[in-house]
Amino acid sequence: MAETYETRWKVRFGDVDPAGVAFYPTVVRALHDALEDFFGEFVGVEYDRVLTEERLGFPAVGLNVNFFRPLRFGETVILAMSITHLGRSSVRFRYRVRGEDGTERAEAEVTVTTVSLDSFSSVPIPDRYRRVFERVLEPDTEDDVGGA
Amino acid sequence: MAETYETRWKVRFGDVDPAGVAFYPTVVRALHDALEDFFGEFVGVEYDRVLTEERLGFPAVGLNVNFFRPLRFGETVILAMSITHLGRSSVRFRYRVRGEDGTERAEAEVTVTTVSLDSFSSVPIPDRYRRVFERVLEPDTEDDVGGA
Amino acid sequence: MAETYETRWKVRFGDVDPAGVAFYPTVVRALHDALEDFFGEFVGVEYDRVLTEERLGFPAVGLNVNFFRPLRFGETVILAMSITHLGRSSVRFRYRVRGEDGTERAEAEVTVTTVSLDSFSSVPIPDRYRRVFERVLEPDTEDDVGGA
Amino acid sequence: MAETYETRWKVRFGDVDPAGVAFYPTVVRALHDALEDFFGEFVGVEYDRVLTEERLGFPAVGLNVNFFRPLRFGETVILAMSITHLGRSSVRFRYRVRGEDGTERAEAEVTVTTVSLDSFSSVPIPDRYRRVFERVLEPDTEDDVGGA
Repeated sequence: MAETYETRWKVRFGDVDPAGVAFYPTVVRALHDALEDFFGEFVGVEYDRVLTEERLGFPAVGLNVNFFRPLRFGETVILAMSITHLGRSSVRFRYRVRGEDGTERAEAEVTVTTVSLDSFSSVPIPDRYRRVFERVLEPDTEDDVGGA
Repeated sequence: MAETYETRWKVRFGDVDPAGVAFYPTVVRALHDALEDFFGEFVGVEYDRVLTEERLGFPAVGLNVNFFRPLRFGETVILAMSITHLGRSSVRFRYRVRGEDGTERAEAEVTVTTVSLDSFSSVPIPDRYRRVFERVLEPDTEDDVGGA
Repeated sequence: MAETYETRWKVRFGDVDPAGVAFYPTVVRALHDALEDFFGEFVGVEYDRVLTEERLGFPAVGLNVNFFRPLRFGETVILAMSITHLGRSSVRFRYRVRGEDGTERAEAEVTVTTVSLDSFSSVPIPDRYRRVFERVLEPDTEDDVGGA
Repeated sequence: MAETYETRWKVRFGDVDPAGVAFYPTVVRALHDALEDFFGEFVGVEYDRVLTEERLGFPAVGLNVNFFRPLRFGETVILAMSITHLGRSSVRFRYRVRGEDGTERAEAEVTVTTVSLDSFSSVPIPDRYRRVFERVLEPDTEDDVGGA
C-alpha cells in the first residue's frame, strides 16, 4: 500500500479572479510548489539543490487537470500527491486537491522527464530518488523501469 | 472546413525559469490570454464585457496539455485555436502552439462550461456566440447541442 | 516600543528569473501575501473575510522598495512588518526583508487606503483594526488620526 | 527635448483582483514587460539577446510607484517611458501610465544597475546603449557619467 504525500496551499488574493475563485493557472502553479515541498519534506533534498547542485531537471511533458469545484479566496486546500507511473526517466505525479471540508476540488496529473540541466538530454532517475518515489507509487500501476 | 483563430504570445523575462524556458504554468496562463484575444478579435466582443456586462463566465473544468519542445525566453509563438467539442453549455478549445520556425511546441485542450456569474449555474451558450464558435469547430467533431 | 510582525516567504521555482534570483515583481507579490498573513495571524481576522464580509478594501496608493541583495531560489526569507504612518483612512506598512543568514535583502513601504468595497469611497480605519495596528506602529512616527 | 518611448499594456483576466482592477504586483510586472519592449522596439536589440548573448543584466535596486486611479479589467493603458537618471552603471527609468481616456493612472520609477551576468559585478553601460538612452533622458536631469 503506497503512502501519500500531503501538503497545503492557501488561496491568496493574488490567485483569485474577479469571481473570487482561484484562476486556474494559479492552481497549476500550486502543483509545482507542491512538488518542491515534496522534495524538501519527503525526499529529504531541497528542490533547488537538486537543480543547482545535482543539475537534474524535471521538465513537464504532460499536464491533465479536472476541476470539480472552485477553490475560494482564503481557503486552504490539501494537495495529496502520489505517483502513477515510474519509468526509467519519467514520472507521472498525481495530485488530488480537496478542501478542508473534505470536498474534492480538482485532480491533476503532471508527467515529467528527468534531464541533465547541462546537456538537456534525458537521464535515468537516480536510484536514491527512485527508492523514495516507489514509496508513493500507487499499487495498481507499474514501476516501468524498462520504458520511458 | 473550419477556420482557425491565431494569436501570438511573446515569452517574457517574467515567464521563464532558471533554465531560460517558459515555466509551464505561464503557458497555461497564455492559453487564457489567447481566449481573451479570440473574443475581442474574432467574436467581436471584448472578453471583459462578456463577463462584466453579460454576466457570462467560462470556468475551466478540464485542462490537458502536451509539451513537445521548450518555449524559449524572447521568442514569439503562435497559438492556433479551434473548437473540438461544442455542447449545449460547454466548449472544448484546442490550442496548437508552434514557434515562428514552424516547430510544434505544445498542444492543449481547455474545456469550459458557460455559467451565469449571478447564479453560478449552467446556462446555454448564447446563439450569437454559438454561431461564431461553429466557424472554428473542427469538422470531425460533433456540434453536440443536446449534450452538456 | 512597537512590536514587529514576522512572517516567512520561500522563494519558489516559479518566482525566479533566468539568473536564479527572485524576479522583483514576485517580491512585491510576497509583500501582499505577508499583509494577508498579518491579518490572519496578528489581527485575528482572516484577510479574505475582511474583504468579502466586512467589504473593507486596502488599495495600494504608494509602493517603495529598495533591493539590497538578491533573494535566491530556494531560500526562505523573513519579512518583518511594522507601520510607519497611521492616518484616519490610510496606513503605511514597512517591510524589512532579511535572509535566514541575517543579511538585509530589501526594505519596502506600501501605503494603502481603506475603502468601502461597496462604494469605493474612503472610510475610516475601524477602531478594532486601529488598536491592533497601533501595536506595530513605529514610535518615531505619528498616529495621525486627523490626517488622511 | 527628450523623446518618450510608448508601449501599451492590456489588463487581462489573470491580472485583476476580486474587485476587478489590476492587482498591483501585476502593474509592476508590466513595467518590466515595457522595458523589454523598449529594448526590442526603441534600442533595436531584443532584450533576451542582451541577457543571453551580451551577458548584460539589469537588476532592480529601487522601485517607486504612485497609484492614482485603478486600472480596470480589459482596458489598454499606455506606458510612456523616459529616463530621469543616467549614471555610469545605473539607470532610472520613469514610467507614466495613463488610460486611453487620457487619465493618469500611475507613475513609477525603477532604478537598475548594469551588471555582468558572468561575474555579477557592476559594469559600465555600453556606449551603444548609452547613446540610445540619452534620447529619452529628461532634460532637467543630469547625465551623470561620473557617478554610480
